[in-house]
Amino acid sequence: MTNKQLTIGLVQHACSIDSAANIETTVQGIRTAASRGARLVLLQELHGSLYFCQTEDQANFELAETIPGPTTQRLGEIATELNTVIVASIFEKRATGLYHNTAVALETDGSIAGCYRKMHIPDDPGYYEKYYFTPGDLGFTPVDTSVGRLGLLVCWDQWYPEAARLMALAGAELLLYPTAIGWDMQDPEEERVRQLDAWLTVQRGHAIANSLPVLACNRTGHEPDPSGQTDGIRFWGGSVAIGPQGELLAQAATDTTEVVVVDIDLERSGQLRQVWPYLRDRRIDAYHDLLRRFRD
Amino acid sequence: MTNKQLTIGLVQHACSIDSAANIETTVQGIRTAASRGARLVLLQELHGSLYFCQTEDQANFELAETIPGPTTQRLGEIATELNTVIVASIFEKRATGLYHNTAVALETDGSIAGCYRKMHIPDDPGYYEKYYFTPGDLGFTPVDTSVGRLGLLVCWDQWYPEAARLMALAGAELLLYPTAIGWDMQDPEEERVRQLDAWLTVQRGHAIANSLPVLACNRTGHEPDPSGQTDGIRFWGGSVAIGPQGELLAQAATDTTEVVVVDIDLERSGQLRQVWPYLRDRRIDAYHDLLRRFRD
Repeated sequence: MTNKQLTIGLVQHACSIDSAANIETTVQGIRTAASRGARLVLLQELHGSLYFCQTEDQANFELAETIPGPTTQRLGEIATELNTVIVASIFEKRATGLYHNTAVALETDGSIAGCYRKMHIPDDPGYYEKYYFTPGDLGFTPVDTSVGRLGLLVCWDQWYPEAARLMALAGAELLLYPTAIGWDMQDPEEERVRQLDAWLTVQRGHAIANSLPVLACNRTGHEPDPSGQTDGIRFWGGSVAIGPQGELLAQAATDTTEVVVVDIDLERSGQLRQVWPYLRDRRIDAYHDLLRRFRD
Repeated sequence: MTNKQLTIGLVQHACSIDSAANIETTVQGIRTAASRGARLVLLQELHGSLYFCQTEDQANFELAETIPGPTTQRLGEIATELNTVIVASIFEKRATGLYHNTAVALETDGSIAGCYRKMHIPDDPGYYEKYYFTPGDLGFTPVDTSVGRLGLLVCWDQWYPEAARLMALAGAELLLYPTAIGWDMQDPEEERVRQLDAWLTVQRGHAIANSLPVLACNRTGHEPDPSGQTDGIRFWGGSVAIGPQGELLAQAATDTTEVVVVDIDLERSGQLRQVWPYLRDRRIDAYHDLLRRFRD
């Protein structure tokens, strides 16, 4: 019998311009999580650098790296040392002039279990990701690891029920989101509260609709806008573990470096899907227009 | 300029074996809502009768009626008298041996603006709907009315992001769910709390993912199981109005007859969709497997 209890760590922290310091902060967080029993550790989006997408600057392409590359090498060693699976988030240089925002699962032997290239790419003031990242072409394909079949998704994907559903239909046992989202402090407080609550709630909705645990690891800290046009982004932390009925299992604070460690019972999904058999009743004969941009 | 503020009423009540009394309770609730300014009134699922699906009993087919039929006639008169659009929920007899669970929008002149036949049909102990209701064949098609384009859906549809998305893609301005869901009081309280919260949260998720207001009207009261096999269903009321950012605008109590009246700003959806342009970035090239039962 497989033990279906899985202890998961979320490593939330602020980043600086110093990439070496960032990776050390990340590694320290992984060590903390592992020391508290984590067998799977989820990192935040683009944990190796500042969130450089606040501006469109060609110089930032220098931050990209290959997969495998230095970060997967380093984190693979940590995964081996600590005997934990690690989900990293990397600015991937795939080829000359071809870059992705990629989540990578590193196995406990340091090997790369698999990758997910961010499929939904945002582009809003302060989040100029369409400039940097080619939309993923690996589809919504989970990655098999020694701790389970992982539905890796990234940030903006969080807002798309389609992404969560496709991972669930492919047998994902968990949905995992490295993210980098924050507030524009010019927004009034009630708007900021609504945004954080919407972010949490839409993910809880994915958990419920698919009877799956959902984990999100978000960066924290303030990062100035290099262009000086805005006040920058106050990343809202709040890294979260959600159970398969949408229940809040654990959540980090918005404004501190924090390692969340949480136990997830992977057997509850199967029990829930018997009580709430959503998958049985999907009207796949009537969903064709989901493949349209708009039904006009 | 159209006034895009819309006042909506939700009429939540208990039902009895007396169909005439049920319709009078409903009509009284509509009058209350209209007197408080409602120009659109949403009724609960199958408001004309007890929730007869607790058992499979051929005699219950006598409860079905045609559309148009006595209930649409009566409620059409009320819609005309009160100058309000009404969304009713009817056990529809479409033909001999062919029945549906149908939502009907009645226009302010008493005419039938359009229907939606419940697409996702549940079947669980106490909710034997597959026996009574043929799955809908009208698709996920909104109904145009004088108060807006209404995305009518029914109860079990609430758990399906696909349904909400298809209505949004067809230009629905509101999602409206007549529902009949409740507790098995044999479940421990913490499970009942999780269920009610999941029901609310998954709907808030639809609101967020589609930047649309969501309204649900649920029945309340205890209805015994005619078979005596269970303790019956304690319908959990909690009829709710949710804003397009997932915010809770108003909610009824779980255990009382109640008319909720709430103002909805229909212009917020458009503003939100500019700030959070989810529709722009959907990966319709990669959603094909949503049309599969499972990706195996």
